[in-house]
Amino acid sequence: MSTAGVAELQAEVVRLRHELETVKVGQDAGEQIYVGSYLLERLAQLGVTSMFGVPGDFNLGFLDLVEDHKTIEWIGNCNELNASYAADGYARVKDQSLGVVTTTFGVGELSAVNGIAGAFSEHVPILHIAGVPNTAQLKNKPMLHHTLGDGRFDAYTKVSEQFTISHAALMNKVTAAVEIDRVLTDCITMGRPVYLTLPTDICYEKIPSGRLRVPLSNLPPENDPDIESFVLDEIVRLLQEAGQDAVILTDACAVRHHVKDELKELLVKTHYPVFSAPMGKTTVSESYDRYGGIYVGSISHPDIKEKVENAKLVLSIGGLKSDFNTGNFTYSIPQAKTIELHSDHTMVLHARFPGIGMKRLLPKLTARLQPFKEEAKQLSVPTFKNVVPKEADNVISHSWWWPRVAEFFRPKDIIVAETGTSSFGVLDVPLPDGAVFLTQILWGSIGWTVGSTLGAALAGRDLGLGRTILFVGDGSLQLTVQELSTMIRVGVKPIIFVLNNRGYTIERYLHGKFRKYNDIVNWKWTKLLDVLGGEGITKSYTVHNKEEASRLLDDPEFASAKTVQLVEVMMPQHDAPRGLLVQAELSGKTNRYVADATSI
Amino acid sequence: MSTAGVAELQAEVVRLRHELETVKVGQDAGEQIYVGSYLLERLAQLGVTSMFGVPGDFNLGFLDLVEDHKTIEWIGNCNELNASYAADGYARVKDQSLGVVTTTFGVGELSAVNGIAGAFSEHVPILHIAGVPNTAQLKNKPMLHHTLGDGRFDAYTKVSEQFTISHAALMNKVTAAVEIDRVLTDCITMGRPVYLTLPTDICYEKIPSGRLRVPLSNLPPENDPDIESFVLDEIVRLLQEAGQDAVILTDACAVRHHVKDELKELLVKTHYPVFSAPMGKTTVSESYDRYGGIYVGSISHPDIKEKVENAKLVLSIGGLKSDFNTGNFTYSIPQAKTIELHSDHTMVLHARFPGIGMKRLLPKLTARLQPFKEEAKQLSVPTFKNVVPKEADNVISHSWWWPRVAEFFRPKDIIVAETGTSSFGVLDVPLPDGAVFLTQILWGSIGWTVGSTLGAALAGRDLGLGRTILFVGDGSLQLTVQELSTMIRVGVKPIIFVLNNRGYTIERYLHGKFRKYNDIVNWKWTKLLDVLGGEGITKSYTVHNKEEASRLLDDPEFASAKTVQLVEVMMPQHDAPRGLLVQAELSGKTNRYVADATSI
Repeated sequence: MSTAGVAELQAEVVRLRHELETVKVGQDAGEQIYVGSYLLERLAQLGVTSMFGVPGDFNLGFLDLVEDHKTIEWIGNCNELNASYAADGYARVKDQSLGVVTTTFGVGELSAVNGIAGAFSEHVPILHIAGVPNTAQLKNKPMLHHTLGDGRFDAYTKVSEQFTISHAALMNKVTAAVEIDRVLTDCITMGRPVYLTLPTDICYEKIPSGRLRVPLSNLPPENDPDIESFVLDEIVRLLQEAGQDAVILTDACAVRHHVKDELKELLVKTHYPVFSAPMGKTTVSESYDRYGGIYVGSISHPDIKEKVENAKLVLSIGGLKSDFNTGNFTYSIPQAKTIELHSDHTMVLHARFPGIGMKRLLPKLTARLQPFKEEAKQLSVPTFKNVVPKEADNVISHSWWWPRVAEFFRPKDIIVAETGTSSFGVLDVPLPDGAVFLTQILWGSIGWTVGSTLGAALAGRDLGLGRTILFVGDGSLQLTVQELSTMIRVGVKPIIFVLNNRGYTIERYLHGKFRKYNDIVNWKWTKLLDVLGGEGITKSYTVHNKEEASRLLDDPEFASAKTVQLVEVMMPQHDAPRGLLVQAELSGKTNRYVADATSI
Repeated sequence: MSTAGVAELQAEVVRLRHELETVKVGQDAGEQIYVGSYLLERLAQLGVTSMFGVPGDFNLGFLDLVEDHKTIEWIGNCNELNASYAADGYARVKDQSLGVVTTTFGVGELSAVNGIAGAFSEHVPILHIAGVPNTAQLKNKPMLHHTLGDGRFDAYTKVSEQFTISHAALMNKVTAAVEIDRVLTDCITMGRPVYLTLPTDICYEKIPSGRLRVPLSNLPPENDPDIESFVLDEIVRLLQEAGQDAVILTDACAVRHHVKDELKELLVKTHYPVFSAPMGKTTVSESYDRYGGIYVGSISHPDIKEKVENAKLVLSIGGLKSDFNTGNFTYSIPQAKTIELHSDHTMVLHARFPGIGMKRLLPKLTARLQPFKEEAKQLSVPTFKNVVPKEADNVISHSWWWPRVAEFFRPKDIIVAETGTSSFGVLDVPLPDGAVFLTQILWGSIGWTVGSTLGAALAGRDLGLGRTILFVGDGSLQLTVQELSTMIRVGVKPIIFVLNNRGYTIERYLHGKFRKYNDIVNWKWTKLLDVLGGEGITKSYTVHNKEEASRLLDDPEFASAKTVQLVEVMMPQHDAPRGLLVQAELSGKTNRYVADATSI
């Protein structure tokens, strides 16, 4: 028998032993609990402390159990899209746990779809629980409210299946616990959304609780040892051939698939220069002396571009090569000098090794590369420093604002940046040690940050992180604004910088700079929190110029973030961060319209 | 050859002649226009004057054409869900036209899904245009922003297919016009949503405009004459056998499939008593002397229930028997004494006749039944009158509020009632002649009325209707509140009654009366419009008791609706309209939870 065959058998033995133990423990169990309670206990075990969503008549029974739960808090959101965004933000900050959103049949779950799809796209683990009619109704399909009127009770599930990696319809108490464990395991080991329908009656069926004694594994499966060993040999050989002239490029999936610690170990033990793609920002501390800054193809600062593209070998960790994450596909790194480590496969130059995941591979690679340390140290690294430019006028320009506000950041702050001027702006400045950076560069759904900030702040509170600081444009904030109300209610204390530039600025740069469709209504931002339930307990400010902005940022009372604070930052309508200007020019080329619109 | 066969051939000849004429005219055409402009001209021909949506980089080129169009106005919404609701409200008011919502690839279109699904469920014609990447990108599938990152560019279309009756992906300029015409024809003749993807390049391809000279038909196809004739004989025979002891019951699809005029003719010529299901309210003028009020199964007023259920024959027009539209399936009318006329089929007792639609059938039926007029006149009809009860206290109860506000209504007002206390409340009072009533009893997505009111008000302005009056609870308004801002911007002037009862009252009655999850944050409602861009140009009020409410309703300045006005109506937290109390009791029985939640 081949070594691979033996390894497979060994893995199966391990799996069966675990399954057997679980089943025995489950049968053994005397205490009976509701299916809904079983689900909640599993979530509590996985570190879930907040559940997002909106009540609806098919989930109210379940919400009784949530409301009565000792450690999980029901965070009722203003709408389901915001709730799904909140679950996303929560999951991103609370590494190795997951976000949970509970909605009701049809009307509720469909409103959350964009949020779930974004989590799929960006590898965020979310459990979406839809409260659905009882099992008799699901079988007989009467014309209930929230249905399509044509008996297609499976339409919503078909939608969710597009954006989740695993789904379970709990129709039977006998299999309920196994199904719950299956989708939760998929969610946390693969880092993507899963979907569960919970009928009103199944929620209150009683099942043995014993299975809960065996915690769910949150580790991905072991790699095949033979292939893994082959891959390691190949990587070491290529590095030697390259005379160790290599750089490490970290990206989105290094964060999302939890290899920050493994990567840190690799860096400390090898001293290779490390750069980050935009979506990988803060995977590595931006104050680390071997960190060179953000690589984003032709949009990169020239010295970063030179270092990355001229290295003889690039070791990419968790790469995700989307348009906005690569300077519109302008990487100048041939595949023939790239090694890619991913969550579920490895690429060595042109060779693909399915099933060889980085979580297990990285520690072994570190051990093999450690002897390379002294030579790797010789490779120089550009310095990623923050410099506030001197500008003659008092206008709050993007070129001034981002370096200036960067001085306001503290270690462990959670920085959330909306797609558009904010995400491009923050990318250009270094964040402090332990800072957590949230943005949505691949999915890019405007309005996402508002819900996400709520979830991030709650997760940050759990983990003892610093302040939660949101940067959002006035156009984006209007999509999801009501969730500020929930922040006030649950007592988190984010600082919200609203960049008031009167419209969708990122779009003006992509197309229609002076078009009316990119205008929005200028809200009275400083009165908003008062209206949303924050009168007397929140604070709002407007800063019109550099001087006012600096004064506020230097105010220790403001910086202490003792309540929800909203800062309206007055910016010119036609200004944008450097990165956005270049990106817009590149996008414009591939996405050109005929200029002449006079023929009609 | 059978008569049916001949009829089929004749229909095919008509169809081919029309197609031939269209093709010839199209070829003949000298002038070339953009595909995007062709689409807009078709919409203008169908009476569309407002287009809803949110800009995004894959639709900006198309929006240039919209913004430059002479008769179609771009109504930029705050978010896509609200935009889809607005298109729904617009289509409901603007009979025989359609609503249009334009979104961008992925992030935009998915946020609109709940609104489109609701329109499908409730038979509302909406065209959903998704701006998508150019055709080269659609073929090569690069990892663009707004994608799932795995190359599945068809995932969003798969979602839309669940909730639309027709879809077209415009990938080629040669077939573009035919495809546009096909989905638009389906939309308006079948009264349901359709979906169109418009790539950035195809939008600006030039095609001949000649085809535009042949307008699209908005009539459903002719019925098979033999079967139709057979059905008519059967109906007349059954009425004769019943001694003409019959009532007419009108419902949702009579409104949605445009047979209001045909039904009126039938009533005038026959004098049969007529009742309405909740979703059919205002199909027939509620001041018509042969109109008896709302029949809703066991929730009906006793005299209505008696009249409908004791008739020997019930002629149902456009019935839609959903739970909340039938008093939780408590119709006591056997199928063996029911004739059902639908948009696409007819039921005579237990016999089904597919393809026999009511739009064509009704005028013929009227002609046959006219001789029955004198006998039908003898059948008595309960009077549906409005009586404001005398109540000792000054509290604004539901029992007082709805009859009182009914006195405020004027002919041709558009009344929009949110699912919950509002929809149940308005059902119990008669609306004036020509009033248009909008509610969402089958789909029941809370928050829908806010977007819907915007669309309804714009359509009402086109048609010269009266005021637009919205009733919405505080919980529901929070879901979609930002759209009030759009109302202010575009200059419509609805009156918005916000029923402040501090939470989701309908849900309290269904389950969890004292649960925290049914609470919401109490917003400062009277400052809301000011924040959303309405300072100095809108008005807000709070009424705490009957006296204040009456005074405001009697104020001619208020009633003249010269600007957007918001009225916060303070109501007790645990009060609800009669209908909701009964419905909740019925729902509770079928949707019961175990009361004991102490086992965990």
